[in-house]
Amino acid sequence: MTLTGKSLIAGHPVFGTAGTVNAVNPATDEQLEPRYGLVDEAAVADAAAAAADAFDTFRQTTPGRRADFLDRAADNIDAVGDELVPRTVAETALPEAVVRGELARTTNQLRLFATMLRDGGDFAARIDPAKPDRTPAPRVDIRQRQIAIGPVAVFGASNFPLAFSTAGGDTASALAAGCPVIVKAHSAHPGSTELVARAVSDAVSDAGLPAGVFSALFGSGPTVGQALVADPRIQAVGFTGSRSGGTALMKTAAERPCPIPVHAEMSSINPVFVLPAALAADPDALAAEFVASLTTRAGQLCTNPGLLFVPATPDGDVFADAAANAVRGATGQTMLTPGIQRAYASGKAELEGLSGVDLLAEGTEGDAANSPAPALFGTTSETFRATPRLQEEVFGAASLIVRYADIDDAVALAKSLQGQLTATIRFADDDHDAAAALMPVLERTVGRILFNGWPTGVEVGHAMVHGGPFPATSDSRTTSVGTLAIRRFQRPVSYQNVPEALLPDAVKPGNPWKLPRTVDGRIELP
Amino acid sequence: MTLTGKSLIAGHPVFGTAGTVNAVNPATDEQLEPRYGLVDEAAVADAAAAAADAFDTFRQTTPGRRADFLDRAADNIDAVGDELVPRTVAETALPEAVVRGELARTTNQLRLFATMLRDGGDFAARIDPAKPDRTPAPRVDIRQRQIAIGPVAVFGASNFPLAFSTAGGDTASALAAGCPVIVKAHSAHPGSTELVARAVSDAVSDAGLPAGVFSALFGSGPTVGQALVADPRIQAVGFTGSRSGGTALMKTAAERPCPIPVHAEMSSINPVFVLPAALAADPDALAAEFVASLTTRAGQLCTNPGLLFVPATPDGDVFADAAANAVRGATGQTMLTPGIQRAYASGKAELEGLSGVDLLAEGTEGDAANSPAPALFGTTSETFRATPRLQEEVFGAASLIVRYADIDDAVALAKSLQGQLTATIRFADDDHDAAAALMPVLERTVGRILFNGWPTGVEVGHAMVHGGPFPATSDSRTTSVGTLAIRRFQRPVSYQNVPEALLPDAVKPGNPWKLPRTVDGRIELP
Repeated sequence: MTLTGKSLIAGHPVFGTAGTVNAVNPATDEQLEPRYGLVDEAAVADAAAAAADAFDTFRQTTPGRRADFLDRAADNIDAVGDELVPRTVAETALPEAVVRGELARTTNQLRLFATMLRDGGDFAARIDPAKPDRTPAPRVDIRQRQIAIGPVAVFGASNFPLAFSTAGGDTASALAAGCPVIVKAHSAHPGSTELVARAVSDAVSDAGLPAGVFSALFGSGPTVGQALVADPRIQAVGFTGSRSGGTALMKTAAERPCPIPVHAEMSSINPVFVLPAALAADPDALAAEFVASLTTRAGQLCTNPGLLFVPATPDGDVFADAAANAVRGATGQTMLTPGIQRAYASGKAELEGLSGVDLLAEGTEGDAANSPAPALFGTTSETFRATPRLQEEVFGAASLIVRYADIDDAVALAKSLQGQLTATIRFADDDHDAAAALMPVLERTVGRILFNGWPTGVEVGHAMVHGGPFPATSDSRTTSVGTLAIRRFQRPVSYQNVPEALLPDAVKPGNPWKLPRTVDGRIELP
Repeated sequence: MTLTGKSLIAGHPVFGTAGTVNAVNPATDEQLEPRYGLVDEAAVADAAAAAADAFDTFRQTTPGRRADFLDRAADNIDAVGDELVPRTVAETALPEAVVRGELARTTNQLRLFATMLRDGGDFAARIDPAKPDRTPAPRVDIRQRQIAIGPVAVFGASNFPLAFSTAGGDTASALAAGCPVIVKAHSAHPGSTELVARAVSDAVSDAGLPAGVFSALFGSGPTVGQALVADPRIQAVGFTGSRSGGTALMKTAAERPCPIPVHAEMSSINPVFVLPAALAADPDALAAEFVASLTTRAGQLCTNPGLLFVPATPDGDVFADAAANAVRGATGQTMLTPGIQRAYASGKAELEGLSGVDLLAEGTEGDAANSPAPALFGTTSETFRATPRLQEEVFGAASLIVRYADIDDAVALAKSLQGQLTATIRFADDDHDAAAALMPVLERTVGRILFNGWPTGVEVGHAMVHGGPFPATSDSRTTSVGTLAIRRFQRPVSYQNVPEALLPDAVKPGNPWKLPRTVDGRIELP
């Protein structure tokens, strides 16, 4: 396929006329062809109108038909993999094996939602049968199901050009719910976006669905992105990116005449609590594992371990020294964009200037462009608590070791944390009491608690929560990864005393879709 | 019990010193004793601190213990019924039988949540077991449950002094979820509030729970109410009231350093579509039923039928004439407060002044104070679509009949509607095609679709949705009535590779709480 530089508006390729942008190979700072035409607000209105037109047809498809469509989208994306992977590598400087892995994750994610739909979906059907003989008043038949909320705007992430972007988790879960999707393309990987968008758009057509089910727009965030969130036809927003970007969209959404929910996954420094017995086992090995997690994908993961709490003990000294040595031995990898590299450099410089914060170690810059040295900082428990700046994410391979005096101190540190996607506890059996003291504090602060791993690597399953209290996300009641993510794009509707012929299949007598349903408060399996 | 005029802050009675307010008997305009002391922001901070202190203990109680507490609260409220009912009647002018019914509904609602907790609650436990042999990478064990979101601020409604107030649906569902509650008392029924608040607070103490689990504050909305929503310890808000009140709280919540969800149930005019065959059967009887629903509780119900779509046919003329006659024969009942009566009068006057809107009929004022005449207006389909003011709620016994030309016109009218709590279809078998055309439009617009009843009367069950798109509520993804309401006050947490001894009971191996749980995406019953 030849890249065209065009947006896709309900199946129609459109070369935007509000300026152009080229992708940049961050490893060389060279522009990549073709130029991408940026659309204006009129294109947003066209895409939104098409999505609104498509909505009723799409949301009323059977789960099986939506599953087939998701599978087809996955197949179409896989089919362009040999063109997609090298383009994504060129646009992001991520290693080819990493991009291949992310591609598999992306299409498996679409297929997981397809399987979920075939297995009964998440219609959450509830039936309270009539009780004609109830006193003092009879009860009429009431049935509830979840319906799609409406057209959804999706803002892809720079750091996962496939799995959290054009056909990533937000798009997959919104489509699974029956919501048309309009993707605002990330300017860092337009070629990858175009290839994936065409694959999804072809799947819409292959499945015989209305073309407005999917659009992808190249355009400026402050104009096109904001216009998309402000458009009255858009009913929800999925976003992965910076805190400033996410909060700007939250503000726009809240100020609409009809406010809408924004699901923004924004910033997290993913604290790791290294407990004494776990540390004692092998501090050197633990330090090596930590630095490997820290430097994965140049530290550009939402769940990068940006904060370690380590005992102020001789074992802790051994760990800190070993981690510092490992960082000194690490070479910088090319970051996703020159802008991200500049932000890393400025965040790192800011940390270096903070009183009470020590630069424990620095690695080596890489040979390619935009490959700054990893860095490790250290500070005390007191300084950490007194310095709110230390809770702001420095996106990249930088981390901070905070030394704690005892478990009470560790618990106090946990209580001082802002909302996070994850918290990790490095644990051995003798750490039970300490972990038990930390757990209730961390539950209130994070979306996922993990033991004896590293936070990087987010499993796409049914039990995953990739979310958490603000500022990790804009809405802690949801997740942006895993099948629960579909709930972001649904809302409940009750049907009271509706004739059988007019009831939706999800709540019809006879259970034609073979769903698990809650009858009078108790789940009944098909 | 003697009324004291005191707020209850974590079990401590406090007479606020920021002014006083008395209840007013709206039937006589006379003040009722005692004076209620209004608290200031310091009391908000005290209650919030106590709630935050109580949160961890309360949220970690077993479902059985929370169920016992809710039952106890219900019993305590029932125990003061003979004092509560006459006080509520005096404060609201609602008939005694109505208040007795509402009291039963309120305590039954608490007991329904208790039953739900004993039956397995809504922990939504999900387990993705480890797959150590999976390639290319093994999967670790991941488990998910819902936890309480944090202390909740509840703003009670004027129109349901018991069922949507101090221990109403918001409070019941928040407590069931494990969230401490701080009630901002409605100034229209302080005596009822005090009696119910003492009953709930006593239940907290009877159940051996920390006193901060429940507080009730008398204070001004603009200061105390806003301070409560702005307090960093409050994590969610439940509100029932006016659109202006709800949107003011939404704004405050969105502008916090850490924004929080607001569940505001605000305004709805509850369209009723009278279809031709249903109308033909007995237009006179239908009109009588309509006016009975319209004038129930002086029209002061969130689901009052404020808008009827009736065919522009001879049958429709018969219906409109009969409804007008019934309204002419209706006598005004005392409204809840003098202020609500004034708002009704001004809303009615505004409708009278609108071009193209006719006053079809007016009833008689009641003998008591604040009992304005019911009113019925009429207009055309064209005028309705051209006059946005006609979609604003006039709280009270006023309704508008819009005459539609044919089913296409009815569908176009449905498409022009703002978000609503309910839509009603008056239906006979020959109306199938018309109803089928309306259903998908109404699904997108309302929370509950009902056939051949009237929207007044909201069943408290598992399948009820009392919610809907803005401006009916601030968040269409939820309900404020029924067991699904608990989800407003929960958020998911994942536990990855957590040792069994540290796992919460809801997701422990062996399923000690006997919950339905989703294992690898499929529900397993205990």
